[in-house]
Amino acid sequence: MGVLSTSEKKFVVGDNGYVLEDVPHLSDYLPDLPTYPNPLQDNPAYSVAKQYFVNMDDTVAQKIVVHRSSPRGTHFRRAGPRPKVYFESEEVYACIVTCGGLCPGLNTVIREIVCGLYDMYGVHRVIGIEGGYRGFYARNTIPLTPKGVNNIHKRGGTILLTSRGGHDTSKIVDNIQDRGINQVYIIGGDGTQKGASVIFEEIRRRGLKVSVVGIPKTIDNDIPVIDKSFGFDSAVEEAQRAINAAHVEAESYENGIGVVKLMGRYSGFIALHATLASRDVDCCLIPESPFYLEGPGGLFEFIGKRLRENGHMVIVIAEGAGQELLSECMRNMDQKDASGNKLLQDAGLWISQQIRDHFATRLKVLHLKYIDPTYMIRAIPSNASDNVYCTLLAHSAIHGAMAGYTGFTVGPVNGRHAYIPFYRIIERPNKVVITDRMWARLLSSTNQPSFLDPKDITKGRDEEQPQT
Amino acid sequence: MGVLSTSEKKFVVGDNGYVLEDVPHLSDYLPDLPTYPNPLQDNPAYSVAKQYFVNMDDTVAQKIVVHRSSPRGTHFRRAGPRPKVYFESEEVYACIVTCGGLCPGLNTVIREIVCGLYDMYGVHRVIGIEGGYRGFYARNTIPLTPKGVNNIHKRGGTILLTSRGGHDTSKIVDNIQDRGINQVYIIGGDGTQKGASVIFEEIRRRGLKVSVVGIPKTIDNDIPVIDKSFGFDSAVEEAQRAINAAHVEAESYENGIGVVKLMGRYSGFIALHATLASRDVDCCLIPESPFYLEGPGGLFEFIGKRLRENGHMVIVIAEGAGQELLSECMRNMDQKDASGNKLLQDAGLWISQQIRDHFATRLKVLHLKYIDPTYMIRAIPSNASDNVYCTLLAHSAIHGAMAGYTGFTVGPVNGRHAYIPFYRIIERPNKVVITDRMWARLLSSTNQPSFLDPKDITKGRDEEQPQT
Amino acid sequence: MGVLSTSEKKFVVGDNGYVLEDVPHLSDYLPDLPTYPNPLQDNPAYSVAKQYFVNMDDTVAQKIVVHRSSPRGTHFRRAGPRPKVYFESEEVYACIVTCGGLCPGLNTVIREIVCGLYDMYGVHRVIGIEGGYRGFYARNTIPLTPKGVNNIHKRGGTILLTSRGGHDTSKIVDNIQDRGINQVYIIGGDGTQKGASVIFEEIRRRGLKVSVVGIPKTIDNDIPVIDKSFGFDSAVEEAQRAINAAHVEAESYENGIGVVKLMGRYSGFIALHATLASRDVDCCLIPESPFYLEGPGGLFEFIGKRLRENGHMVIVIAEGAGQELLSECMRNMDQKDASGNKLLQDAGLWISQQIRDHFATRLKVLHLKYIDPTYMIRAIPSNASDNVYCTLLAHSAIHGAMAGYTGFTVGPVNGRHAYIPFYRIIERPNKVVITDRMWARLLSSTNQPSFLDPKDITKGRDEEQPQT
Amino acid sequence: MGVLSTSEKKFVVGDNGYVLEDVPHLSDYLPDLPTYPNPLQDNPAYSVAKQYFVNMDDTVAQKIVVHRSSPRGTHFRRAGPRPKVYFESEEVYACIVTCGGLCPGLNTVIREIVCGLYDMYGVHRVIGIEGGYRGFYARNTIPLTPKGVNNIHKRGGTILLTSRGGHDTSKIVDNIQDRGINQVYIIGGDGTQKGASVIFEEIRRRGLKVSVVGIPKTIDNDIPVIDKSFGFDSAVEEAQRAINAAHVEAESYENGIGVVKLMGRYSGFIALHATLASRDVDCCLIPESPFYLEGPGGLFEFIGKRLRENGHMVIVIAEGAGQELLSECMRNMDQKDASGNKLLQDAGLWISQQIRDHFATRLKVLHLKYIDPTYMIRAIPSNASDNVYCTLLAHSAIHGAMAGYTGFTVGPVNGRHAYIPFYRIIERPNKVVITDRMWARLLSSTNQPSFLDPKDITKGRDEEQPQT
Repeated sequence: MGVLSTSEKKFVVGDNGYVLEDVPHLSDYLPDLPTYPNPLQDNPAYSVAKQYFVNMDDTVAQKIVVHRSSPRGTHFRRAGPRPKVYFESEEVYACIVTCGGLCPGLNTVIREIVCGLYDMYGVHRVIGIEGGYRGFYARNTIPLTPKGVNNIHKRGGTILLTSRGGHDTSKIVDNIQDRGINQVYIIGGDGTQKGASVIFEEIRRRGLKVSVVGIPKTIDNDIPVIDKSFGFDSAVEEAQRAINAAHVEAESYENGIGVVKLMGRYSGFIALHATLASRDVDCCLIPESPFYLEGPGGLFEFIGKRLRENGHMVIVIAEGAGQELLSECMRNMDQKDASGNKLLQDAGLWISQQIRDHFATRLKVLHLKYIDPTYMIRAIPSNASDNVYCTLLAHSAIHGAMAGYTGFTVGPVNGRHAYIPFYRIIERPNKVVITDRMWARLLSSTNQPSFLDPKDITKGRDEEQPQT
Repeated sequence: MGVLSTSEKKFVVGDNGYVLEDVPHLSDYLPDLPTYPNPLQDNPAYSVAKQYFVNMDDTVAQKIVVHRSSPRGTHFRRAGPRPKVYFESEEVYACIVTCGGLCPGLNTVIREIVCGLYDMYGVHRVIGIEGGYRGFYARNTIPLTPKGVNNIHKRGGTILLTSRGGHDTSKIVDNIQDRGINQVYIIGGDGTQKGASVIFEEIRRRGLKVSVVGIPKTIDNDIPVIDKSFGFDSAVEEAQRAINAAHVEAESYENGIGVVKLMGRYSGFIALHATLASRDVDCCLIPESPFYLEGPGGLFEFIGKRLRENGHMVIVIAEGAGQELLSECMRNMDQKDASGNKLLQDAGLWISQQIRDHFATRLKVLHLKYIDPTYMIRAIPSNASDNVYCTLLAHSAIHGAMAGYTGFTVGPVNGRHAYIPFYRIIERPNKVVITDRMWARLLSSTNQPSFLDPKDITKGRDEEQPQT
Repeated sequence: MGVLSTSEKKFVVGDNGYVLEDVPHLSDYLPDLPTYPNPLQDNPAYSVAKQYFVNMDDTVAQKIVVHRSSPRGTHFRRAGPRPKVYFESEEVYACIVTCGGLCPGLNTVIREIVCGLYDMYGVHRVIGIEGGYRGFYARNTIPLTPKGVNNIHKRGGTILLTSRGGHDTSKIVDNIQDRGINQVYIIGGDGTQKGASVIFEEIRRRGLKVSVVGIPKTIDNDIPVIDKSFGFDSAVEEAQRAINAAHVEAESYENGIGVVKLMGRYSGFIALHATLASRDVDCCLIPESPFYLEGPGGLFEFIGKRLRENGHMVIVIAEGAGQELLSECMRNMDQKDASGNKLLQDAGLWISQQIRDHFATRLKVLHLKYIDPTYMIRAIPSNASDNVYCTLLAHSAIHGAMAGYTGFTVGPVNGRHAYIPFYRIIERPNKVVITDRMWARLLSSTNQPSFLDPKDITKGRDEEQPQT
Repeated sequence: MGVLSTSEKKFVVGDNGYVLEDVPHLSDYLPDLPTYPNPLQDNPAYSVAKQYFVNMDDTVAQKIVVHRSSPRGTHFRRAGPRPKVYFESEEVYACIVTCGGLCPGLNTVIREIVCGLYDMYGVHRVIGIEGGYRGFYARNTIPLTPKGVNNIHKRGGTILLTSRGGHDTSKIVDNIQDRGINQVYIIGGDGTQKGASVIFEEIRRRGLKVSVVGIPKTIDNDIPVIDKSFGFDSAVEEAQRAINAAHVEAESYENGIGVVKLMGRYSGFIALHATLASRDVDCCLIPESPFYLEGPGGLFEFIGKRLRENGHMVIVIAEGAGQELLSECMRNMDQKDASGNKLLQDAGLWISQQIRDHFATRLKVLHLKYIDPTYMIRAIPSNASDNVYCTLLAHSAIHGAMAGYTGFTVGPVNGRHAYIPFYRIIERPNKVVITDRMWARLLSSTNQPSFLDPKDITKGRDEEQPQT
């Protein structure tokens, strides 16, 4: 067995030839840190599950989860409590920050980190950084206690406020150092995780005993490696409401068309799942499946056919769908029409206008209703299954930080929670594989055109995506 | 007692000086119609309420309901079953049509007319006219049975389809005559009721034994005389969801503003009630209360103050609010910017842009999220209280038609269901009286500026609106 | 005009012969109290509605609302702000107490009293008495601030805790006196209002400047005089969920019967309205309409018929329905079977067992499912229309107390909010009038037997209940 | 590679030593059946996913999914379309039957089998067997078409009706044979699957070309091997409503206790997940974790402590929890008290009574509210994630039947849909492993006693359950 560690990647080759893509550990650069027995071993709640601590010792074999998409299989370190921890409870000073857009479950993750640190590890010093990365240096912190966060999972949004950008590595790390913070929990999307990675590197460079943990957040489910992102289930559920409304509007008018724009700039998971769940959608357009409007096999032909047959139809479009067409449209427009361009930047408004224009002369009447439920979906509290999931994420994050791991994110891989190096989460967005059976199911259920020449179909993956 | 009847109005002056604004009756122009005992009198369900039929004879006194806003009080004929009916059950051939925009409860009204005619009066020939007025001559009809409509109240929209316009009086009346239809139930807003009035006049001119009944529909609650329109309660309830989302979005960002546009082209009832119900709204803008943006006492000043104090705010704007400002803006704009003008036509988009522009240079950050839940509100099924209300409306309509009344609409006036002449419903929209206590309550609850010089305050009505 | 005041009743006979049943006033027994201008008159929010204060002076005419059920009409004093108040803002020390069972809207009323006192009258000393009447002497008080109550209307229950009983007049009044409390807001049902009346009498006896205000609470809508009680709408809405479940269970089995017990010990309003709203109910049993099980026209016959025709049915039973039958059953049972008796005390369990027993030998299969959603209904937060209503109640209560009225309750009478003497609220419960058209509508919609001999039908009221 | 086939089990040992537990195939006993190309290969929807058919040929390796709990790993055949099918579309005559209790998603599975057969395979003859197994011989069948089932997934229950028992193998198979049915889809719990297994054996004995497919249904999630059963997510979500109500009731009273009984006769998955999702539950009692009431470490001690600390608490109890205690209680009771015994059979009523009795003398007041939401949970329509899941189940079932497999059930194993022999599903119920980390998480989150001596703790499984 050998360790191939660089500043960035840490591979462990197992006896059987498998490769473990491991995550950094404080001891990588602080070799003489003392360890302590994990207090959970005396916790009556965990005493029944005590054998985990035995299994969780430092042999590689029991700690890996297979990453399905790799040729021979990449392995990640299993998440969970370790028999030894690198922090004494009184020593820990943890902070939590939320960055980027809203997503159902943010408050649940915050709540569970706070309660988990208190209840499982007896950690009593937890603060919230307010308003995203810039909150480290530009705003006050918020003390977080189990009592204070007790009911926050019942409302949407984030009690810590959030923002995009504001990432100033040295200011942030200075601030962490000045305050004496030694566990940093960062909840956010891929941009945020990139930032977390840079913060971790700087902390390592300074040789600080600070664990940096990322909890990946994306309502679009477009983070790679992990099975599913938190809030996704809640979003798909809430999207049904908009699809239902679009369906009712469409059904109640001659040549009624309901268009619903759903989240998904680079990946169409929400649109795909919401469509499959609803059964009222006639056409689902996602970024991964390019389409065209005119001519045989095009969208307009399909719309015309569906209206003739059923008298109405519902279209779901992911926000990132049809970007090439949209860009082309914009290039063709009079450059001076700035407001028009603005209109075009919304895929839903754009497709609605295209449909209206096309059928204006071809149909006597057309009633198109456009619904953009984005903010109404983002702002809901997480549902029950996301609540359970957020709890597991938060606990995995805590166990990892206490055990001295750092520079990692958490998430389920192939059904088991794992510690994943930052670079894996960031490298490329997770996308709907349109040669997969899931997309075939959608096409079969909507009967929409595939918009593809058979010859274009690339060799897809052998493996089916587990259903989320 | 004397009857002052014209082609349009029918006043009955009572002994005590009160004036009854009566509705037309088939016998006004068909004097020798036979009558039959009301079959309800043998219905076991109604036998317990039998005394109504006694009270409901032709003396004026028991049949009037006071219209509160009139000086001495206008009276309307009480709705309800009459001891004598002008149609035999087998003779009746009824049709139902829905016109205009969607409103929660349309399907409930349809269901209850169908079931009421079957169950109460043994009428078995009821059809639906498809797609609004033009359906009379341009589309097929749909047979309606209790079994067929049994569950339709659980979904939104209208199973009969709807449309605007298409009113061609002679084609419609020809069609009614050709088919032998003798009861016409027309569900729609003020434009539709105007159309119903014209249809009634033409039917009277032709001397047909056809009752024309309007059921007023407006999600905005802007129909005058009646206490409340169906679907209003459901709409206010559903609007809470959008306001909650706006609140969560606003709360989760520094200088977060959530803007929600609600229905109400000419009247702000939905915005007013949704604001009072929510308690999360900081400012409510309605058509009845003109406002200004700049300067002391203006909207921008208030927004700035609220953001400084609370860090976020929620604004509810009715779709018809600020039309003068908006028109002025449009006049000032470059005439060529057609798309920009389009943008402006949406009060919500317009106010959002104005706020963004104003604070762009005045605040470091501003996160404004705009939510337009219109279609998601319109398309819901009616809630429990609207379901009960729709039942009463439908029953009143049926009792009136069976008793030979025609050219009337139905609705509760001062808590009692009445038959109201068309012209009363059409004359002018119902509006929020901003010198009323209800608006004062809103101002008090939001602490928003009144945007009014005290000297502008006109003498309001003495009477408070009954709470809806 | 003359005042006929006793310790209990205070009649004012108007010039036109109408009688105003007025409420007590602090000046009745404290004649020399100073008055102050109502600060609302300077409130910009209320300045637009300023004429109210003019209209609201001490002439009788403008302040009365007619109580419809009286022969000539009883009048009550209009609720609303008065030009003069009897308390200076800094002087007021208000307390709020909630008693009895849970009801949607309790927290909204609490919130609106607190915010209304702060925002409208600048009152900053408001406390909560914890856990009902006994909280006055047995528990600590809770300071109440607008910030503290800001979001409580979004959750069910009462933040002040509640309890039944615990009414010890002298201890309570001692406590009020000791603390210097001078406005007492008591939210509760008829037992609670009786208690409030006694407290008021004792306070008057002691000559204290303390306003005692009752806010009537009953989820059953069984409080007389007022149009509707808060929480009723929310309860009827939530009851739909249980009825839907019962319907699905019944529909999914051969001879499936779903039985739903709803609140209503003495009155069947919730059952009546929930049945009318749902349209899935085949039979509704309420306390006001006695029924019998066996023989022609009995319940079993109807059930048998409905099962033969439809294969399934749904029964809604108010908790107080069939009490005579139930008592008879209990008398007939073996006295020793205490647990059995207990079972019987639940009308829903009892009727379910009776049905099962009766059909055990008559049908091959019977699938009866019993649902008791009581606690799940009581515990919801109030819906939008109840929220608005609770606001009006709270404001009326505050205006009355500030204006020096005492010993009164608040509520809408005939569409207008009024001050009502305690004895009027307590005298007898409001009941469904089964000779009214509302019950006839229900019978007509369910086609259930009336269980009445025509000769039993008593002469009903002439007036129809306004729809709630 | 060798096949070890018996009448019951069919093992295939792979080259690498892994064992595939395969499912029966029509060709096992009808060797000369013709095959046809899968029409899906020409379906434009599936053309993009065409490589699946290549991968899905008859080599073992690509078709297996690992069953995690086995030592070396049991493998199952991958579900999905095969390049060759054993039925021509026109030849297929399929029937669907639902058995046992209600579960969210039944109608979705029915809908998707019907639509899947029509849309994917062009099968147009599908009927429903009404009312469970006995419907095969005792009732009429229902023709099922895509149009007829189009909206059924939006309501709970089963349009086919259901029942327990009624399994008469020869009558059922006679009926299948007489009607010429050749695909039988059986949706039901473990008893139903046992029945399906017997039907399959009889069909094989008779040498009929009939595929028998089971779709496992259990709201309790207690079916082994598969990752999760349909309807479970929806049930956990809906359970939140009851827990919220219990929490509100408990919070609003001094010493308030809310007890919620949830489904789970043999396994506590719903209780466990609903508790973890809610965060308002203080104690969760499940069948897998025996508990005791009295003495140190007992339930009463914990309740007393929690009431002293918080003033209220919420208890969730699975219907099968505490059966030993309950049986003991019943044995100790007076034999004559039949009704009392009945009371005891409900774990929720029993525990409520025990708590009331114990604290009657120990606390001044106790307000215990018991909520049984069982029927209200069972009867809801499935949520979005269950809808997607039901679609996958139905499609897997169809693909399997068309490909000639028979005597199998479908379900995801370790994230991938597989064909599983009946005996595997029936053998023993799936249970919460209380030495697993999931239960430890619950104990940690509620802080309830583990009710276990450390020495009792048996060696748990090494593997963590994937989160459902």
